[in-house]
Amino acid sequence: MTKDEAAELITARRLEKKLTWQHIAEAIDSPLIWTIAALLGQHPVPEAKAAKVAELLELGPQVTAALRAQPYRGTLDGGAPSDPTIYRLYEALSVYGPAIKEAIHEEFGDGIMSAINFKVDIARRSDPDGDRVVLTLDGKFLDYRW
Amino acid sequence: MTKDEAAELITARRLEKKLTWQHIAEAIDSPLIWTIAALLGQHPVPEAKAAKVAELLELGPQVTAALRAQPYRGTLDGGAPSDPTIYRLYEALSVYGPAIKEAIHEEFGDGIMSAINFKVDIARRSDPDGDRVVLTLDGKFLDYRW
Amino acid sequence: MTKDEAAELITARRLEKKLTWQHIAEAIDSPLIWTIAALLGQHPVPEAKAAKVAELLELGPQVTAALRAQPYRGTLDGGAPSDPTIYRLYEALSVYGPAIKEAIHEEFGDGIMSAINFKVDIARRSDPDGDRVVLTLDGKFLDYRW
Amino acid sequence: MTKDEAAELITARRLEKKLTWQHIAEAIDSPLIWTIAALLGQHPVPEAKAAKVAELLELGPQVTAALRAQPYRGTLDGGAPSDPTIYRLYEALSVYGPAIKEAIHEEFGDGIMSAINFKVDIARRSDPDGDRVVLTLDGKFLDYRW
Amino acid sequence: MTKDEAAELITARRLEKKLTWQHIAEAIDSPLIWTIAALLGQHPVPEAKAAKVAELLELGPQVTAALRAQPYRGTLDGGAPSDPTIYRLYEALSVYGPAIKEAIHEEFGDGIMSAINFKVDIARRSDPDGDRVVLTLDGKFLDYRW
Amino acid sequence: MTKDEAAELITARRLEKKLTWQHIAEAIDSPLIWTIAALLGQHPVPEAKAAKVAELLELGPQVTAALRAQPYRGTLDGGAPSDPTIYRLYEALSVYGPAIKEAIHEEFGDGIMSAINFKVDIARRSDPDGDRVVLTLDGKFLDYRW
Amino acid sequence: MTKDEAAELITARRLEKKLTWQHIAEAIDSPLIWTIAALLGQHPVPEAKAAKVAELLELGPQVTAALRAQPYRGTLDGGAPSDPTIYRLYEALSVYGPAIKEAIHEEFGDGIMSAINFKVDIARRSDPDGDRVVLTLDGKFLDYRW
Amino acid sequence: MTKDEAAELITARRLEKKLTWQHIAEAIDSPLIWTIAALLGQHPVPEAKAAKVAELLELGPQVTAALRAQPYRGTLDGGAPSDPTIYRLYEALSVYGPAIKEAIHEEFGDGIMSAINFKVDIARRSDPDGDRVVLTLDGKFLDYRW
Amino acid sequence: MTKDEAAELITARRLEKKLTWQHIAEAIDSPLIWTIAALLGQHPVPEAKAAKVAELLELGPQVTAALRAQPYRGTLDGGAPSDPTIYRLYEALSVYGPAIKEAIHEEFGDGIMSAINFKVDIARRSDPDGDRVVLTLDGKFLDYRW
Amino acid sequence: MTKDEAAELITARRLEKKLTWQHIAEAIDSPLIWTIAALLGQHPVPEAKAAKVAELLELGPQVTAALRAQPYRGTLDGGAPSDPTIYRLYEALSVYGPAIKEAIHEEFGDGIMSAINFKVDIARRSDPDGDRVVLTLDGKFLDYRW
Repeated sequence: MTKDEAAELITARRLEKKLTWQHIAEAIDSPLIWTIAALLGQHPVPEAKAAKVAELLELGPQVTAALRAQPYRGTLDGGAPSDPTIYRLYEALSVYGPAIKEAIHEEFGDGIMSAINFKVDIARRSDPDGDRVVLTLDGKFLDYRW
Repeated sequence: MTKDEAAELITARRLEKKLTWQHIAEAIDSPLIWTIAALLGQHPVPEAKAAKVAELLELGPQVTAALRAQPYRGTLDGGAPSDPTIYRLYEALSVYGPAIKEAIHEEFGDGIMSAINFKVDIARRSDPDGDRVVLTLDGKFLDYRW
Repeated sequence: MTKDEAAELITARRLEKKLTWQHIAEAIDSPLIWTIAALLGQHPVPEAKAAKVAELLELGPQVTAALRAQPYRGTLDGGAPSDPTIYRLYEALSVYGPAIKEAIHEEFGDGIMSAINFKVDIARRSDPDGDRVVLTLDGKFLDYRW
Repeated sequence: MTKDEAAELITARRLEKKLTWQHIAEAIDSPLIWTIAALLGQHPVPEAKAAKVAELLELGPQVTAALRAQPYRGTLDGGAPSDPTIYRLYEALSVYGPAIKEAIHEEFGDGIMSAINFKVDIARRSDPDGDRVVLTLDGKFLDYRW
Repeated sequence: MTKDEAAELITARRLEKKLTWQHIAEAIDSPLIWTIAALLGQHPVPEAKAAKVAELLELGPQVTAALRAQPYRGTLDGGAPSDPTIYRLYEALSVYGPAIKEAIHEEFGDGIMSAINFKVDIARRSDPDGDRVVLTLDGKFLDYRW
Repeated sequence: MTKDEAAELITARRLEKKLTWQHIAEAIDSPLIWTIAALLGQHPVPEAKAAKVAELLELGPQVTAALRAQPYRGTLDGGAPSDPTIYRLYEALSVYGPAIKEAIHEEFGDGIMSAINFKVDIARRSDPDGDRVVLTLDGKFLDYRW
Repeated sequence: MTKDEAAELITARRLEKKLTWQHIAEAIDSPLIWTIAALLGQHPVPEAKAAKVAELLELGPQVTAALRAQPYRGTLDGGAPSDPTIYRLYEALSVYGPAIKEAIHEEFGDGIMSAINFKVDIARRSDPDGDRVVLTLDGKFLDYRW
Repeated sequence: MTKDEAAELITARRLEKKLTWQHIAEAIDSPLIWTIAALLGQHPVPEAKAAKVAELLELGPQVTAALRAQPYRGTLDGGAPSDPTIYRLYEALSVYGPAIKEAIHEEFGDGIMSAINFKVDIARRSDPDGDRVVLTLDGKFLDYRW
Repeated sequence: MTKDEAAELITARRLEKKLTWQHIAEAIDSPLIWTIAALLGQHPVPEAKAAKVAELLELGPQVTAALRAQPYRGTLDGGAPSDPTIYRLYEALSVYGPAIKEAIHEEFGDGIMSAINFKVDIARRSDPDGDRVVLTLDGKFLDYRW
Repeated sequence: MTKDEAAELITARRLEKKLTWQHIAEAIDSPLIWTIAALLGQHPVPEAKAAKVAELLELGPQVTAALRAQPYRGTLDGGAPSDPTIYRLYEALSVYGPAIKEAIHEEFGDGIMSAINFKVDIARRSDPDGDRVVLTLDGKFLDYRW
């Protein structure tokens, strides 16, 4: 079973059992976006957590195995920017985009984060392991409304 | 003069005068990322602010005119994702990516925000004009080191 | 069952039962273009409406489930314009293009709306929730004629 | 002088003289969107109208000549849908997209027509020359707001 | 059954039964090129003709249904076609397209040759230097009319 | 001077002098479509004809030289052409290409219609429903021969 | 059965039976490269030869039928050069490339013909049916060596 | 001066002086195809030969310098096949295609080497430096004939 | 069975049996990267080694056969650089990239070799068969860390 | 002056002055590949080193300024692999490819590093700042030989 097939099974079973991503993330004691990204196939999942997910969703050992496997990451194809500083932002979108989409829908319903009524801020956060860049993207939620 | 030509002039003159983006942003009383994005051609600049920038950098009225003009936005080409929720993140990267790059270099020097030693968080922020999605991207800074 | 598979089943069964899209739209009390777009997989369908559609077309609960799921929207790939104002028109075409095609064929038969014998008008419509842009595209219908 | 160069001159001079597109359209007694599209190079302009535009904007006879020339139309490249019914909508966007963008900015300021808070309607309009398809796109205006 | 699957079945059965396209076209009393295009999935086929084709080729009612369905037309998708027979037509368009455009505008004014109100015919013309393929493309002229 | 630059000069001077392509074709005693294609840079022009064209349009010897040079032919590069007049020919090829291929093979066997030993003609055909453009493509059949 | 599926069966069975392409080419009395290209699906194979191949490889009548069918030729996609003189070389590579690859591996083993230690020569060969261009490509064989 | 600019100058001057490529190749005592490829910018030219070419064509020392410079080779873009054995043939076409085109036109006039009336042969040629693959491409010349 | 299918089976079975690539490489007495590349389908595997791999992983003779077959190499598509010197580096990445990825994960865990904290060195290594270029890429390992 | 223009000037002047890259690298006391990459525009050059380069090559202060500026890195476009582990290798090729090419030509002359007679090795190198991945690419040099 590929990681894509596992992700499809997880997605379907989750809807059927009406479990939120938040619930699953808590059950495996992991951050929300990491959890969604990992279950959609973008991260290898440690064995115990993979087993817990399979138990929660009543899925077989093949799913556990697929979750544990090392992924080929990325969901965007074509048009990557060549500059490394900009590329890392693009890569983050490629790896975490679908997870962010799922989290937005779970929290806000069907809609988007506006990129028009929107602002970005950047800050430095000190860290003994090396300082960190912190970007904050803040956009109004717009729901699909006919 | 096109907005691209104005951006090139501003970039060159800024280096020559050793002015930081932060300094310019404060001089026109605008947020940092907005300021860089706008001066790189991604936003129309109000007349007074455009004039102030031209004065600071000793550039002529053609630059002011170009800054005021309505832009054709976007810096990425090819490979846009079709889902609207994911697309808005891509659009934000297309409009603000070069500004974020400049801000990273100004604050941290030559290097990147890691997408590996990296985490994303999402939150809802209440707002009387409609609730907002707040994404926080937090990655370690890595400097170019041979 | 994916939303694409559900759309294929709906399309086939609809032809078999000789039901118009208009009829289905009325049965679920929804606008025509929205209904076609949603049944082709571009919108999540509320549970009651999804069930009604399945009943009308004598399709099983898997179809209902697929209709309710959150879609990855969009039908065009490649060549998206980067400017956000123009992009929104492109996105509308990507999301609603097939629905408009179906509606044209249902009302007019096999053919096209001319883009040559064609005009566009734009207007502002006041709305307490924020004013609206109203674009009217008006083109002669041309039927396929050998 | 190419039609693109003429369009660039017209765009710059129009801003300088603070003339609206609406004003120019009325001066040459033509519909707004047609006028913008034509001056941006998407239609050949009849000689008298071309001369009037040049007079209004104080531009030379080379501009008049360029406006009169037969255009190579279209502004989108790549990714055209192959189905003729859907293609005509895409072509309309390719020919009139920049004109619609200009008209939105002139009427509403910097921003977009939402494709989320948005609806589409289709109608048949009888016409002795052959019935017409009338599409109405109705979306909320969202202004760029930081 | 999709139109592509129906086309594949028809192609295989036709070879097996050693029926020419010409024979089938006559059997359904339709022009040759139209018939081939329609059976390959590019036109909806009227019910009686679709049934006649199925009868001739001893194919089931699913084929009839697929033939009747409204197609998504088009076989080219970006880039030159690789088959040499089709490529030569593409090359002719690449070399002579702008010349044909100029000639249409000189003779008819601003507009297009319709590809909807349109027919194609093919004939063999004897020639001592080797016989020739003669293709006649015949389409209604449509002038740009607002 | 490149062939493209010569084509641009010829195009501009022709409009200025209000000479039709038909007139020029007759002056150099060549077929209409061949003449336009050659002057737009798709064929090398024999010296006497090139000189005659330069004389007619009062252009210098550099134009004559450019016209005589061997071209790199072709105007399409990946993707559908955006100009509507040319696009309709492309669409016809997209919809009818495989049908034409089948018809060629049925009538002539395995091979191609040459685009080298080839000519195109255009004519107007009166029709009460609106005049028609009739294009005739006439190319030698070449069979696959090892 | 498609020509691709037939090619896959032939490739597998050939390896199993340890038959060289050379052997098969002799068995059907055809040139080596033509034979490989035809069995890989780039040429229609005359009925007697197709039957002989099926007999040699102990494959069924469906393979014979697939071999006889008229192919859609070509194996390269994207990036075709537009100039017809250069395109014909590209087309030859598209049609015969895999056959040449197979023949190189059969004669020399796993490796390549160098394009660096390489030369090209061109000659005219008289022929009553029209003179021929003869290109000779001569490159050193390099075997994969770790 | 870039190698492209040098190639353009050489091309123009050669036509003006009515010197054949064959003549130039003999003057610098080099093979024909190598010479054309090198002068079009695909090989660095040894100093004495570069000087001889400049003398023959009465071009300055900047041309000599450009001819001597190390090139970035290749003329095709997009769509390269990934298999190394096939890629080397593609690379040969990319590096030598325009030279072959020039040599065909010089020897045969305006036209192509047919890829339809065409055959390929492969042979092994022993060589003390390592055996060589010899490919012979043999196609009928077809001249452009209206 | 294709080489891709064999690679998938090998990958799954290896994880199940918890065998390292290093272990397999030693078992068949071959270099690590060569072994991984070969088992992922980029090299033909000699019969004895293929049989040994199948025995180790308890896979059937179809896998052995697939491993022995001559591959169509390469894993990257699109965007190949045209210069042959640079292309060879790209080809090495195309053929060995996934093998290097597997080896990095096996030795270091989930993460990347930094291209920022990174250096490259080049050296000449004498060799009786011809001197060799030796490139050393040296980058810090960064593990995925949330 | 852009970094590209500076690189072009440096390249030309270096040839004129017959200075090797090695010589320049030593003059600024920097590693060879870093130096070439930086002078070709892929790294910002510290002020003192930039001035030294300008002095060596007798170039003006605009070159120094351009060398110091922060680059937009990368030389490959299109087709980037999405997996981050593989992408970093691709990025290294994009940033350092032309520098490696220059170094190969300087050391070995016109030719390539073979990817066929080629091997790759991987090793872990301990480092107090974090262990490093060391890749060694070792390929035979092949010179262009007609």
